[in-house]
Amino acid sequence: MFEAAKVGRKVSKADFKARVPALRAELLEAQRQVAATGVPVVIIVSGVQAAGKGEVVDRLNHWLDPRWVQTTAFWDESDEDRDRPRYWRFWRSLPPRGEVGVLFGAWYQSPMDDHMAGDVSDSTLDAELSRIEDFERMLICDGALIVKFWFHMSERDQKRRFKALSREDRSRWTNLPTSSTFAAHYQRFERLAERVVRATDTGMAPWYLIEASNRRYRDLAVGETLLSTLRARLAQAGADEAVHAPGGPVLPNVAGARRTLLDDINMDQAMATDEYKRRLKALQAELNELAWTAYKAKRSTVLVFEGPDAGGKGGAIRRVTAAVDSRLYRTIQIAAPTDEERAHHYLWRFWRHLPRAGRMTVYDRSWYGRVLVERVEGFATPTQWSRSYFEINEFEEQLANAGVIVVKFWLNITKDEQLVRFKEREVTPHKQHKITAEDWRNREKWDEYNDAVNDMVSRTSTRHAPWVVIPANDKLFARVAVLEAVTEALRTALKDDVTS
Amino acid sequence: MFEAAKVGRKVSKADFKARVPALRAELLEAQRQVAATGVPVVIIVSGVQAAGKGEVVDRLNHWLDPRWVQTTAFWDESDEDRDRPRYWRFWRSLPPRGEVGVLFGAWYQSPMDDHMAGDVSDSTLDAELSRIEDFERMLICDGALIVKFWFHMSERDQKRRFKALSREDRSRWTNLPTSSTFAAHYQRFERLAERVVRATDTGMAPWYLIEASNRRYRDLAVGETLLSTLRARLAQAGADEAVHAPGGPVLPNVAGARRTLLDDINMDQAMATDEYKRRLKALQAELNELAWTAYKAKRSTVLVFEGPDAGGKGGAIRRVTAAVDSRLYRTIQIAAPTDEERAHHYLWRFWRHLPRAGRMTVYDRSWYGRVLVERVEGFATPTQWSRSYFEINEFEEQLANAGVIVVKFWLNITKDEQLVRFKEREVTPHKQHKITAEDWRNREKWDEYNDAVNDMVSRTSTRHAPWVVIPANDKLFARVAVLEAVTEALRTALKDDVTS
Repeated sequence: MFEAAKVGRKVSKADFKARVPALRAELLEAQRQVAATGVPVVIIVSGVQAAGKGEVVDRLNHWLDPRWVQTTAFWDESDEDRDRPRYWRFWRSLPPRGEVGVLFGAWYQSPMDDHMAGDVSDSTLDAELSRIEDFERMLICDGALIVKFWFHMSERDQKRRFKALSREDRSRWTNLPTSSTFAAHYQRFERLAERVVRATDTGMAPWYLIEASNRRYRDLAVGETLLSTLRARLAQAGADEAVHAPGGPVLPNVAGARRTLLDDINMDQAMATDEYKRRLKALQAELNELAWTAYKAKRSTVLVFEGPDAGGKGGAIRRVTAAVDSRLYRTIQIAAPTDEERAHHYLWRFWRHLPRAGRMTVYDRSWYGRVLVERVEGFATPTQWSRSYFEINEFEEQLANAGVIVVKFWLNITKDEQLVRFKEREVTPHKQHKITAEDWRNREKWDEYNDAVNDMVSRTSTRHAPWVVIPANDKLFARVAVLEAVTEALRTALKDDVTS
Repeated sequence: MFEAAKVGRKVSKADFKARVPALRAELLEAQRQVAATGVPVVIIVSGVQAAGKGEVVDRLNHWLDPRWVQTTAFWDESDEDRDRPRYWRFWRSLPPRGEVGVLFGAWYQSPMDDHMAGDVSDSTLDAELSRIEDFERMLICDGALIVKFWFHMSERDQKRRFKALSREDRSRWTNLPTSSTFAAHYQRFERLAERVVRATDTGMAPWYLIEASNRRYRDLAVGETLLSTLRARLAQAGADEAVHAPGGPVLPNVAGARRTLLDDINMDQAMATDEYKRRLKALQAELNELAWTAYKAKRSTVLVFEGPDAGGKGGAIRRVTAAVDSRLYRTIQIAAPTDEERAHHYLWRFWRHLPRAGRMTVYDRSWYGRVLVERVEGFATPTQWSRSYFEINEFEEQLANAGVIVVKFWLNITKDEQLVRFKEREVTPHKQHKITAEDWRNREKWDEYNDAVNDMVSRTSTRHAPWVVIPANDKLFARVAVLEAVTEALRTALKDDVTS
């Protein structure tokens, strides 16, 4: 497929000079419109070595208004990156709405490096490419424009370029961390590149193959391509609901006939105070040890707490965190997003709080807001929230694959019990601030929330990130059940690290 | 001074149990009011080893609502921390308004560690303590409450505690990175502690000495002290203008008699296109090399661009960044702060963008907005902006001390030249978006801005971070002058690293 990038396309100096001024003005104007429309633009710069990717990026920064461009190279992985799931660094580098992120290699680099180094099998690579496809689709559905450039040249041209670079000792080539592996394996790399480019050349995010042997042609081709993709994107609808978004899958709406986990719970379970105290103490002691074991084993933990208002999330969380050294955990309370968070995909704000290796993050409400409150209150469109199940499962699978221990709790209470608790809050002085008009409004939508919960549990309870549904009408029973599930999950995950 | 913390204070189990429920309720209520008022609360936990600082912090997390508490221990310094000026990690860990940050050791830890290790002299320590005093005053003037706990116990009690800890092999003591240096040097450490505590026991941010040998007394004392400090702070005025704030220094207001650098500039300087092209090319080539040299030498660069509307900041910045590999720099465009930024001290948003070692951050407008637009437009009170000169000088000194190369540009144009440029923008199609009603409004305040600039340059042009005032009526001359100053600064700073 790369033959088309080896035909010797050239642009003369005169042609280049003639075309560039207008192109720059048009690019600036398109960029300005992008900023106004709020489209996040991701430009991926990839391709064979010595194709001049750095030069291209410098040129883009020169042509565009650099104030709204952020360039990220991934050669300087920090230990904060390494301590988290692999995509954390990509999420960090995603541009906010209206800005441009130029990414060197992006998520394509390490799968290709690993495969070239013989570290991963073909099937692992394929799985990775499928993940990339999902990731890009997710961003695009959220309004992003992804422009992927693949720079290519013939083996002869590449050899010539390498020679020139090694002569020019002032060039950046001597400064960048690199190796000559790829040059020696031109053929092998090209076969791999074809596989990668083909598998990820989706209609939503096509690859643009650019012949790189002539610098002027290369840069002009990049500029013109970028301009046309920006214009095409701007001609579409608003950023919030990209026309790329497929119609959301229609969920079977047979509420009466629907039975899920929630209906099978025995809501009458309770625990006496004596037993509660005894078991709480034992479980907290064990959890304290397990948290330190996880720290030493560099295994992170993510706990998610969801439940109706007055479901007892706060109390349950406190019984967990009371057992864990405060240096090891962080509680994230999810309320309305900040404006920086709103400028990104809705999962961005959860990625940013992922714990470093060996730590724990407790999410008090979570990404499931998308399919609960946002669904019921209409803050997200059906198209948006219905594709979230898939996005969430992907997200949690990435956590699990990175060794993160994920446990999700739904604290289930009955509608009657909620009423009792609301009334209690209204008459207890130090609890009055916990009950608002909004709580009462939400309560009116109990059935709709119940439908949403049913869907959520059935569609996102996965092997790697199961839902633990807790009958929480009795607070003592619920807290012990939560602690049991947390210790059980850590004990199982750390069984090889626990020393008796 | 620590005798008072060795008198054997105790609280019985019964007393503890009797007092705690009310204390917790009162703490929660005070915390809720803190959240409503928007006071950021910094709790510093420090003291002799084995005093149970971890236990105290766990207790605080248990008593307070942990959703609004962030605990930071500084034992896990990441390379992203190490790659930046030392206070970067403290700025990262400061709580936003309305929340509580619990900091282990905070900014006191490493100066004490270094002094105990014999790495720093007494005078270096004193200088550091003076910096701490300034830093804390700055936060307090911004509305923060800083509660500093020093935990102490007698040598005998500490020895006993160490023995017990080493027996208890399940304790966190075996897990935390530590050393027994301090225990062996009880006397020496106590003398150092006295020096540190005395020097930083300011009226604004007093130390609370807590005897730590009895756990119940220790924790109850912490709880009661915290409660009373929270209440005292809440009884004060709003968060924005703490009553602690001293009256701002009155600047001599004799505008007619005032002559500064700005008045001495020859505004007629200009450059012919031929010379411009020649020198631009040479300077950009040199800057490209220097940026790579700085990268290899791990020296960061911070460039600040200020100037009136249409002063040519953007054009000058582009001539600088065009010379630097796009992987090495980032341009930060300062517009209205995001809500996360507004929830912190005004310098927080600039700290967060500081470059990693070897990189460059170009600030297009900067922290000087405080003493320019915020002063002239009244967004900051005179008290606020007039203390900023000191805060800014401190900030830049910290950068310089960390080896960051700091260059600040004021691009000076005359009022007539601005008018010419405004009119040109209005008639040039692709420049029309650059001219707004606000620009014309700002122009009406030309003289007030001029006063502010005069003050700014004279009060913040320091040896370590000088202002370079550029006569910018001629764009070509200005751009070359900027590049000359940048290359000159890098060349001087890197003279030992440049290989010919």
